[in-house]
Amino acid sequence: MSSTPLDELSAALPAGRLVTDPDIVRSVSTDQAAWAPAGAALAAVRAHSTDDVVAVVKTAARHGIPVVARGAGTGLSGGANAIDGCILLSLEQMTDVVEINDVERYAVVQPGVVNDRLREVVAQQGLWYPPDPASSPWSTIGGNVSTNAGGVCCVKYGVTGDYVLALEVVTSNGEVVRVGRRTAKGVAGYDLAALIVGSEGTLGIVTEITVRLRPLPPPAITAAGFFDSIVDAGSAVRAVGAAGITPSALELVDRHCLAAVDDWKHMDLTVNGNVLLLARVDDPEPMADEVAGRIAQIFRDNGASWAERSTDETEADALFAARRLAYPALERLGPVLTEDVVVPRQFVPDMLARIEELAVAHDVTIANIAHAGDGNLHPLIITPIGDDDARRRAQAVFEQILDAAISFGGTVTGEHGVGLLKKGGLRREQSDVVLAMQRAVKQALDPQGILNPGKVIDWP
Amino acid sequence: MSSTPLDELSAALPAGRLVTDPDIVRSVSTDQAAWAPAGAALAAVRAHSTDDVVAVVKTAARHGIPVVARGAGTGLSGGANAIDGCILLSLEQMTDVVEINDVERYAVVQPGVVNDRLREVVAQQGLWYPPDPASSPWSTIGGNVSTNAGGVCCVKYGVTGDYVLALEVVTSNGEVVRVGRRTAKGVAGYDLAALIVGSEGTLGIVTEITVRLRPLPPPAITAAGFFDSIVDAGSAVRAVGAAGITPSALELVDRHCLAAVDDWKHMDLTVNGNVLLLARVDDPEPMADEVAGRIAQIFRDNGASWAERSTDETEADALFAARRLAYPALERLGPVLTEDVVVPRQFVPDMLARIEELAVAHDVTIANIAHAGDGNLHPLIITPIGDDDARRRAQAVFEQILDAAISFGGTVTGEHGVGLLKKGGLRREQSDVVLAMQRAVKQALDPQGILNPGKVIDWP
Repeated sequence: MSSTPLDELSAALPAGRLVTDPDIVRSVSTDQAAWAPAGAALAAVRAHSTDDVVAVVKTAARHGIPVVARGAGTGLSGGANAIDGCILLSLEQMTDVVEINDVERYAVVQPGVVNDRLREVVAQQGLWYPPDPASSPWSTIGGNVSTNAGGVCCVKYGVTGDYVLALEVVTSNGEVVRVGRRTAKGVAGYDLAALIVGSEGTLGIVTEITVRLRPLPPPAITAAGFFDSIVDAGSAVRAVGAAGITPSALELVDRHCLAAVDDWKHMDLTVNGNVLLLARVDDPEPMADEVAGRIAQIFRDNGASWAERSTDETEADALFAARRLAYPALERLGPVLTEDVVVPRQFVPDMLARIEELAVAHDVTIANIAHAGDGNLHPLIITPIGDDDARRRAQAVFEQILDAAISFGGTVTGEHGVGLLKKGGLRREQSDVVLAMQRAVKQALDPQGILNPGKVIDWP
Repeated sequence: MSSTPLDELSAALPAGRLVTDPDIVRSVSTDQAAWAPAGAALAAVRAHSTDDVVAVVKTAARHGIPVVARGAGTGLSGGANAIDGCILLSLEQMTDVVEINDVERYAVVQPGVVNDRLREVVAQQGLWYPPDPASSPWSTIGGNVSTNAGGVCCVKYGVTGDYVLALEVVTSNGEVVRVGRRTAKGVAGYDLAALIVGSEGTLGIVTEITVRLRPLPPPAITAAGFFDSIVDAGSAVRAVGAAGITPSALELVDRHCLAAVDDWKHMDLTVNGNVLLLARVDDPEPMADEVAGRIAQIFRDNGASWAERSTDETEADALFAARRLAYPALERLGPVLTEDVVVPRQFVPDMLARIEELAVAHDVTIANIAHAGDGNLHPLIITPIGDDDARRRAQAVFEQILDAAISFGGTVTGEHGVGLLKKGGLRREQSDVVLAMQRAVKQALDPQGILNPGKVIDWP
């Protein structure tokens, strides 16, 4: 009698790793992309070590079974959703901080380390890991690497990939490799680490990450402004860029988001205006103060009904907290279809205007939160629960927003990844020859197609 | 009668592009790596456009002939050296600055634009392209991309790849693709642009580059120190890092270099000491002044015979000019075998000590210039012209220096690329499985193996 994949997994893994209870398996079969389809997994494995990952991949390779790696499941594109018959490989238990080197300024962590935890432990040594996705209290560094996650401070400090020095990776045939380096620079062979960052578990399973760190920046100073018109707010964003200012955050939160947060947390934000722009400046004093003042003036010059450099950090923190609460607040209203488009900064007002037009034309509610300073907009399409017609309209608008971003020279995903939801957009954004190159790379590193097949690009 | 590759090139290209004169072909058959072997090319082509590149690659693909792309030929690893029977594809005539966008802060250039020229034209708009290899007066952006070139300011501002947003690339079958993006962030599919940066013309021919720009930094302040001992200078470098200081340059020039520059330019540098450390600080005032003073103090605390924050920018510029002149000054003494190792910063003094030991043990002269702040050392092994025994000793030391760098957790090449000279070192640095991944990627994007085959990795 030939052995089954479950028999082999059970034999190869320590007790407690393999999970076949259907309810538990189902509970880890989706990420936060409520609109993306999910298949029925064969089983889940809670890996505690690289050896566990190797055992899973080798078993999967022998049987030609898909492996879907996942961290905390906070993804917004369906990249971690189950595929029929797959093994769900959770890396959430791999939570060791292996090393923090304060001279070389790097940290080595396992993929299940939560983003905020990494920041906390390195801060104790005066160091800073900048990438700060809104999911930072929950999302893992492994997940951040898989989607090249961004965040609030990326407008000045870059995205996850800018901080990845080296990776330990389990290849599609279950071999453990180290790619990248621990030195400040290097060009020894192709940059396989950069290739794997953002590949959403389709080229290898990341089991250890070496991230570059920075010295902790000085305390930031906040400038905030309320606007009646979202397009005016977009113009203010463009004007900040044109003035040569590089804030460490430049976020936009629209009236739908403010109202949802008010409903939930009673913050009375909507009393102040329709659209909130939030900037942070972390230049050394006395420059920061002066720059924050200039930003507030630019907000006023572009139609802000109120704008000030904050003198009260508690108040400033509350505004940033509101920005982070916007997404969960909106989710309380119904399924959220999350966009993640990026346009060149100069087209932020045009893109916001186009989104407003689309919302009106298709009779859907679109809330906007945005890392506006780097042109990364998150239009959030919200439909009432159970309204199938609204759902169809939302899906049509979703694709049209992707097309609008492409038409402005932008991209369909800035930091959430392609997963399942942006595959159509990716096909429209990139040429057939580029897509063929993507498939050739996938074929080269995963010839059997067992690593998260069908995510990012079509497989076979 | 079947047509020959030369017939086809001649028919496909405008007049004057194809060069078969053996003397001219030979003159473009090598880069600056005097020790690397070069083959006999079939012909050279001076491309003026992407169409010319397409014509060359399509002809080469039809006939299975290697194509070796080159810029100014300032490479130091033999990556642009001719392969027997190849077409040398010079991109030096593709010198258009296509666009400078001061709002989005990017520039679009053809590959033949010289690094210093790009800096000059963007500076007119208050913008800055940071990567500044020592070859910046001659080397092209295309060449810089092909080796992921670094430079003096990379200790603070990163290397070429950190500034590449998008590339136009001619693939191995002669198709024109665009990879990357013009937006501030994006994760739409695998990062093919990052894969092609540093691939030394083996995965595609880069015909247009979109680079990210920064605002011009404030004028830098220089701190300089002279040391008797190179290991003391290395300790000072480590101490600057440990103090949490990030200078915008931290360069080391040893006594062999200083003497060679003195001999050539009569600068009397060696009167001051054996080893020069040069730091630049470009923080906003008044911080820069204070930081430069701290660096000078750290130099003195670590054994500098003299160290000061410079109050005379003419004098400071002369010291940086001496650093740039070191390499050509040494080349006047005989063939130079150039290393490009990187070690973690904390091991800079240990690595410098090891290099001194190897020089003594093998009776060879090793000069050192180094981007010491990021651990990137350029030991330069110099042999008297015509001394074959010294040449053999030099080659043995060359490999042992690579091994020493690997043993300190470093890499065999920081910014020059693997080319031909570091292929052995690359094989020792990376595991067999990683090397197999590299070959799989090469096979995926250049299945016929016509793009600079045998460089970086073995082919077939």
